[in-house]
Amino acid sequence: MPDAPRDIEALIEIMARLPGLGPRSARRAVLHLIKKRGPLMRPLAEVMTRVADTARECLNCGNIGTGDLCPVCTDDKRVNGQICVVEDVADLWAMERGQAFGGRYHVLGGTLSALDDIGPEDLRIPRLVDRVTSEAVTEVILALNATVDGVTTAHYIADALSGSGVSVTSLAQGVPIGGELDYLDDGTISAALRARKAV
Amino acid sequence: MPDAPRDIEALIEIMARLPGLGPRSARRAVLHLIKKRGPLMRPLAEVMTRVADTARECLNCGNIGTGDLCPVCTDDKRVNGQICVVEDVADLWAMERGQAFGGRYHVLGGTLSALDDIGPEDLRIPRLVDRVTSEAVTEVILALNATVDGVTTAHYIADALSGSGVSVTSLAQGVPIGGELDYLDDGTISAALRARKAV
Repeated sequence: MPDAPRDIEALIEIMARLPGLGPRSARRAVLHLIKKRGPLMRPLAEVMTRVADTARECLNCGNIGTGDLCPVCTDDKRVNGQICVVEDVADLWAMERGQAFGGRYHVLGGTLSALDDIGPEDLRIPRLVDRVTSEAVTEVILALNATVDGVTTAHYIADALSGSGVSVTSLAQGVPIGGELDYLDDGTISAALRARKAV
Repeated sequence: MPDAPRDIEALIEIMARLPGLGPRSARRAVLHLIKKRGPLMRPLAEVMTRVADTARECLNCGNIGTGDLCPVCTDDKRVNGQICVVEDVADLWAMERGQAFGGRYHVLGGTLSALDDIGPEDLRIPRLVDRVTSEAVTEVILALNATVDGVTTAHYIADALSGSGVSVTSLAQGVPIGGELDYLDDGTISAALRARKAV
């Protein structure tokens, strides 16, 4: 941007590095912010500074919080004994939006990947094995993405926990609510057929 | 986001109000920022605070700068006597990227719109008329969007400046560079045909 002041250029350049934004949408977003300096830009800068200062990963489960332990790990109302294993904090938030799970979480921070050279010690898998023994866990629910790496990781974790006496389950696979068969891939239809239930 | 700390929820909520971002992409962007607190989030918050503190509209042309006058208005190397009229600062930046214009600008801040009840005094049209007489302007180039409101505004400005002796021009309309006729709308093809040139 010739002739845009240097800070504005820098702001656009940084915003364009966010996922989902490119140079053009970053310019639009920055102009919108500048037009709404008082009601939007200043509060955004303030809350962003606060989050940058306070956000940190939970030492126990890897979720994002503001202390050593995250809100889920310190919540007395949640059930102990069940740990839901997710790949990422975004997946934890997705599970929480569903409001179907009241236990604890464990955020791996990724999946095993031979291609990207990510092994168990790069994720929080050893920490999960520790928790299963130390927290008297009865069930580990694997809520990993149904991708090749996700499935590989699920198998690895099931192996690592075999012999610990904990029951390892995973989310059911099948037709999504509201899904139309004609638009589903063959793998999903096969999985749904194999897992068919009596009506 | 149940169980996300309150500041992070607030950050997602504000980010989701930016053009081009929705709740889902705002969550992704915030998680990305939190993962890259040092190299990305903190610089972003700092530069955003600086821009919120310093950015302001040029008193002369409406462009965004950091002082009473913007970098374009104070640039001695630019040609006087030619003013390019644009709707928005984003359009000024688009013109500057083209590097085809070396004169001054005038940012209207919108277009006339009967529907939205925007009249000449809501835009910087009176200020444009002032500049044309006070700055010894010889040509006003209307670089407005080729929308109904843009064309209406162009006609209004041409009327307002008639009698001042200034020459009022507008960007040529026709086939865009690299454009394929089969994908162009009928209006553009008609305009390009009417404005045909000897090869």
